[in-house]
Amino acid sequence: MNLLIPGFKGSAVSANIKYHGRLDLGLIASNESAVLAAVFTRNEVKAAPVLAGIDRLSRGGPYARAVVVNSGNANACTGKDGIADVHKICSLVAKEMGITPDDVMVSSTGVIGQPLPMGRITDAVPALVRGLSENGLEAVADAILTTDTVRKTAIRRIDVGGVEVTVAGMAKGAGMIGPNIGPPQATMLSFVLSDAKVDPVWWQGVLERTVSDTFNRITIDGDTSTNDTVLALANGLAGNMEINEVYYGGTLEAVLKELLQDLARQIVMDGEGVTKCVTLVVKGARTGEEADRIARTVAESPLVKTAFFGEDPNWGRILAAAGRAGFPLDQGLISLSFDDIEIVRMGMGVSKEAEDLAKKVMAAGEFTVVLDLGLGQEEASMLTGDFSTDYVRINADYRT
Amino acid sequence: MNLLIPGFKGSAVSANIKYHGRLDLGLIASNESAVLAAVFTRNEVKAAPVLAGIDRLSRGGPYARAVVVNSGNANACTGKDGIADVHKICSLVAKEMGITPDDVMVSSTGVIGQPLPMGRITDAVPALVRGLSENGLEAVADAILTTDTVRKTAIRRIDVGGVEVTVAGMAKGAGMIGPNIGPPQATMLSFVLSDAKVDPVWWQGVLERTVSDTFNRITIDGDTSTNDTVLALANGLAGNMEINEVYYGGTLEAVLKELLQDLARQIVMDGEGVTKCVTLVVKGARTGEEADRIARTVAESPLVKTAFFGEDPNWGRILAAAGRAGFPLDQGLISLSFDDIEIVRMGMGVSKEAEDLAKKVMAAGEFTVVLDLGLGQEEASMLTGDFSTDYVRINADYRT
Repeated sequence: MNLLIPGFKGSAVSANIKYHGRLDLGLIASNESAVLAAVFTRNEVKAAPVLAGIDRLSRGGPYARAVVVNSGNANACTGKDGIADVHKICSLVAKEMGITPDDVMVSSTGVIGQPLPMGRITDAVPALVRGLSENGLEAVADAILTTDTVRKTAIRRIDVGGVEVTVAGMAKGAGMIGPNIGPPQATMLSFVLSDAKVDPVWWQGVLERTVSDTFNRITIDGDTSTNDTVLALANGLAGNMEINEVYYGGTLEAVLKELLQDLARQIVMDGEGVTKCVTLVVKGARTGEEADRIARTVAESPLVKTAFFGEDPNWGRILAAAGRAGFPLDQGLISLSFDDIEIVRMGMGVSKEAEDLAKKVMAAGEFTVVLDLGLGQEEASMLTGDFSTDYVRINADYRT
Repeated sequence: MNLLIPGFKGSAVSANIKYHGRLDLGLIASNESAVLAAVFTRNEVKAAPVLAGIDRLSRGGPYARAVVVNSGNANACTGKDGIADVHKICSLVAKEMGITPDDVMVSSTGVIGQPLPMGRITDAVPALVRGLSENGLEAVADAILTTDTVRKTAIRRIDVGGVEVTVAGMAKGAGMIGPNIGPPQATMLSFVLSDAKVDPVWWQGVLERTVSDTFNRITIDGDTSTNDTVLALANGLAGNMEINEVYYGGTLEAVLKELLQDLARQIVMDGEGVTKCVTLVVKGARTGEEADRIARTVAESPLVKTAFFGEDPNWGRILAAAGRAGFPLDQGLISLSFDDIEIVRMGMGVSKEAEDLAKKVMAAGEFTVVLDLGLGQEEASMLTGDFSTDYVRINADYRT
């Protein structure tokens, strides 16, 4: 796919931050000052670029011209020096680009607790800025990857009152992927770029809502990162009338949600060691919170996830996980399906034959599990992966 | 160790419930009616023997003469037939032993959702009862194992006003081990036997308190089982004056707690795929709940557990897990040690050398991690294991 968005350029270089000879420093630049919406991790342990980003946005003026992002080092748990490093990067990039430091946002991903190799980064910045081109955004999408194995991008075009508007995004994330509860909160690194002209307050709200319904509903391991960030830049170059809650807001929100869901699915599909991508739907709950908590508990259960890996429709583990989520259940009302194969009805197994069919469903690699509690009308879903032996291998060796 | 407790007999047979040619049906019998204390899983999805046990105890008279236990089949999610099967087993064993069905408790462990093979069990009961002997309790401790690899028993003797009293226990548990919050709740299968004469109300209370401090503070995978049960039988044959809150209660409680902690540690050491046994202490919390929730979150984090497996003192994952537990933290106050090696001070890494020393600590297989939040005086600890490739293998293949 061609990641071309009017008025945006990208560039990436190999700065040897951790991985040698691999793109690990990226830059996204907007020709015009872009409206910036942002959501950050709710983890209490926040990385320096997250702290600096929150601070920058708290000072008002939600606009940006550039996003610098590195992989290989999270710049987390690095104290005051880590924050100073973020400001140095902003200043340096701003100087090279001829903009102001407040126009630059920084994101990092990688190992926690090691100081950024600032010499290598500052050495690389001039070439990074020189390299900016309209065709360079895909290189940025490559530069942000860590244990990811594939680039994750998506693009959509919509008509806004006769004007074509583009919305595109890139994302990274393969581990330390697990949302905490409630918006605004991101669960990985993602940058959304659009040439739409948007109302800034509406743009922030729509990002929070769509992230809450997409990225906040995926889990690889339940571990919320210190660095999770979603930045959405809209530079207005499409020339449309400003989109807001009443003017085409619903249209753009729907497209943005679909775009983020596309990226969220790509993250789970490429999750560390993931061999199965499972949509888990909890239906028949009394409240939305009940549906949500039960879905998250089942989606994060190691026993459920290892059974997915083994292609074993081990429904007892799913019911047991639901039962420990902290809500009263009536096990005699529970039913469970794998795609269209019902394997539990009224709390009991349907048949050996049904389980054999469910096994076949699992072999396909992507399927939906529907757990119906039989108690009410509320539902919630999560996109989750399995736990494989590779998951353990990847994470036992991550720093070595 | 010789599991000999005055007045108790044991017996075990191979009933081919799931595993062929392996002990899988056990019986514990007391010569005299014993005071019975019990705690059961708080999972909303409760197995038939748990439901029948709760019902039995709710009808008063906390006394029992026998405990029947099978492995290989949990008799969970088996509907009314599952409960009827429990009653049939009680009746049959009671008839063979010449006691009443209300004197018999049943526990099961194994696969969820399959009906008990009642024919094989009823066929085996006469030989089971005939086989009762004072030396038979260790065979019961073998018969309750599933994915466990070793028998888990412990025994203590104390002096109660000049009379020697014995307290002993057996346990099983290697997976689906993860407590929910708060007593009374058990997290595996354990049977405590004593010849002490005890006050029944005090005995139930002491079991709840000691389980809460021991079994409820271990985790293999965070998945609370449908079948968790701890039964404590005290038959009074030691001839001591009745132990209660004021008369030797503190002494027996301390010994019971130490005994259960011994069994709890054996469970973690033998946890599915476990290669490291880690005592995780969270200190410096503002409240006990904060310390407890943070300790549980870190102890259950897949990224922390895989790092333990890789012998990587990846402290960033520990801080990140603490930060997502739902309590405000000041990362600049956090310190972290592996045994006596401090690797994080004021939220930042101490040195590469300290990490190398921590790596050596981890290689020993059993160590303590102390996370000091620097916020207050409260603390909590958890006993946890690592996540290995074998953990995944065991659980991907469990039913096949």
